[in-house]
Amino acid sequence: MAHGKSRQTNHRDTISFSNNSIIRMKNILIFGVGLIGGSIALKSKKTKLFEQIIAVERKGGTILSPFVESGMLDRLVTNLEDDVALADLIVIATPVSQISEILEKIYPYLNSKTLITDVGSTKKNVMDDASKALKEKSIQFIGSHPIAGSEKHGPDTAQLNLFEGKNIVLTPTPDTPTLMSEKLNKFWLAMGGSVSIMSPQEHDEIFSTISHLPHLLAFSLVNLINNKEKKEVLLNFAASGFRDFSRIAASSPEVWRDISISNKDAILIDLNLYQQELQKVIALLEGQDQDGLKKYLTDASSTRQNWTDTKIE
Amino acid sequence: MAHGKSRQTNHRDTISFSNNSIIRMKNILIFGVGLIGGSIALKSKKTKLFEQIIAVERKGGTILSPFVESGMLDRLVTNLEDDVALADLIVIATPVSQISEILEKIYPYLNSKTLITDVGSTKKNVMDDASKALKEKSIQFIGSHPIAGSEKHGPDTAQLNLFEGKNIVLTPTPDTPTLMSEKLNKFWLAMGGSVSIMSPQEHDEIFSTISHLPHLLAFSLVNLINNKEKKEVLLNFAASGFRDFSRIAASSPEVWRDISISNKDAILIDLNLYQQELQKVIALLEGQDQDGLKKYLTDASSTRQNWTDTKIE
Repeated sequence: MAHGKSRQTNHRDTISFSNNSIIRMKNILIFGVGLIGGSIALKSKKTKLFEQIIAVERKGGTILSPFVESGMLDRLVTNLEDDVALADLIVIATPVSQISEILEKIYPYLNSKTLITDVGSTKKNVMDDASKALKEKSIQFIGSHPIAGSEKHGPDTAQLNLFEGKNIVLTPTPDTPTLMSEKLNKFWLAMGGSVSIMSPQEHDEIFSTISHLPHLLAFSLVNLINNKEKKEVLLNFAASGFRDFSRIAASSPEVWRDISISNKDAILIDLNLYQQELQKVIALLEGQDQDGLKKYLTDASSTRQNWTDTKIE
Repeated sequence: MAHGKSRQTNHRDTISFSNNSIIRMKNILIFGVGLIGGSIALKSKKTKLFEQIIAVERKGGTILSPFVESGMLDRLVTNLEDDVALADLIVIATPVSQISEILEKIYPYLNSKTLITDVGSTKKNVMDDASKALKEKSIQFIGSHPIAGSEKHGPDTAQLNLFEGKNIVLTPTPDTPTLMSEKLNKFWLAMGGSVSIMSPQEHDEIFSTISHLPHLLAFSLVNLINNKEKKEVLLNFAASGFRDFSRIAASSPEVWRDISISNKDAILIDLNLYQQELQKVIALLEGQDQDGLKKYLTDASSTRQNWTDTKIE
C-alpha cells in the first residue's frame, strides 16, 4: 500500500505477543447496541472471546430483549453496580453526547482491572470527558474509533464482519498502562480490525478532513435541493452520481450533530479551506479558463483514481 | 414513485404507437465509441435494431478495430461522405466540445431523412451548436441525454444493459418533425431507457443541481486533501464515506471541463447557493446551535432516506 501508517500495529507481532501473554477477559459490557455495538456483540459471540456478552438497556432506547432471544447478547444488565464491577471490558457505543454521563454513572463501581473504551468518531472531547468523569481511574479509559461507520443505524444493521480489515484508531494517553493498551489491541484484532495509535488531536484533524467535512458537504447539497422549487423533479432525475455522493447524508442527524459540535474547531478550519477551493472553481468558470479547469480536475481525478487502486474496497 | 415526471413518455403508449407506424432504420453511425457509444453499439447489436453498426475512428482516438473483431461494431467508416449519406441515425457520443466540429463536417452529406442526436450532459450549448452548424438541416437534430454516466470511460467499459430503466432526456426544438421525435423515442426505448422531453434550458438547470454541482464538489474535496501536508495519511484513513462521496471525482477531466464550461451560468448560480448552505452550517457550528444543527441535518437526512426508498437502485 502506498500510504504510510505511523505506529501501526503489525498483525503478526501482536498475535505472537498475545500468545506469550495471557490476557483473559470474561465479561464484556456494551452500552449502545447499534450498528457498532451490535457488530461487536456478534463477532464476540462467534469468536467466543468472552464468556458473557452483556448489554445495557437504556430508558427510551431500543428494546433489546429480542437480541437476547436471537443469541446476539447473553443477557441484559440486571444490576448496573454488579455488572460494572465484574466487567473486564466496557464498550460505550452510544452517540458521543451520552458518553460523559455513562462514565459518571459507572465510575463508582469500576474495579482497577476494567478496561473502558468507546467507539466515537471524535476523540479529543471523549478523552477530556473521560479524564473529568473517571478522575484517577481515567488511565483505564482508551479511546477507540473503528473506521467502519455507515449511514445505517440500529441493532438490526449489525454485521458479523463489520470490522474485517477496517482501520481502528486507538488514542491512549501517555499514562495508559501497556497492559491496558495491549488488551484493547487484542480485542480489536479479534474483531478483525487493523489497529493504529495516534493522539486525540491528530485523530480529530484527520477525520475532520476525510469524514466529517464530506458528511456536512453531503447534507448541504441535499438541503440545497430541499430549498429549490423544483425539488421533486430534481430528485426524480437524480442518478448514480447523486446517489453515491449523498449516501452519507442519510446518516443519523443526532450522531452527526454530536460529531460536528465535538470537532467543530477542526471542521471550521476545513470548511474554510473548502470554501477557498470553491472560490478557485468559481474563478476558473467565470474566466472560462479551459486549461486551468482541466488541470484542477485532473489533479483531483488522478488522486482519486490512485486511491481506488491502492485500497482494498 | 412519488416524484412526478412532466411529459414523460409512457412505455406502453409508445410501443403501441411504434407497432402501428413503420419506422425503419438500417444504419447507425456512431462518433465516439466510449462508455455510452459502446453501450449503444452492444445493445443495438443484441436487439438487431440496425442492419449495420458503423463507427468513426478518430485520428488520435481509441483504436477501434478490436471492437469490430469482437463483434460490437460491424465496421469502421470507410468513406465519411458515403456513410453519412446512408446513415439513418447518427449518434455523436464524443465529449461535448467535439460535437460542433463533427456537425460541420457531416453537414454537406446529410440526407433529409437522417436523424442526428448526441449524448452530452448539457443541452443548451449543443442545441445552439447544432443550429449554427446544421443550418436548415438543424430540425433533424434532437439532443439526447441518457442519465447513465459513470466515472468509467473508454469502449472497454461498455455494457449491454447500461440504459436499462435509466432516464433519457430528449430536447427537440418546437420545429422538430414528429416523425423524427418518434424515431428517437423508439430508439431509446429499444436501448431500455425511459424517455422524458424538456427544453434545453430546463434540462441544464436541473442537471446543474443534481449532477454538475456534486461533481465539482467532489473534485474540490479531493483537491483540498491534495493540498494538505498530511495527504498520504489522510488518504490512508479515508474509508467508505469518502469512497462514495468522491467516486465521481475520478471522472474524466476533459468531459467535466467541457460540461462545466458549457453550463457555467447554471452551475455558478448553484455554487453560489451552495456557499450559502455552507454559511448556514458554519453559523450553526460557531453558535454551537444543537437544535438548529439537528434540524438542518434531519431535513437532509429525511429527504435522502426517502429518495432511496422511492428509487430503483
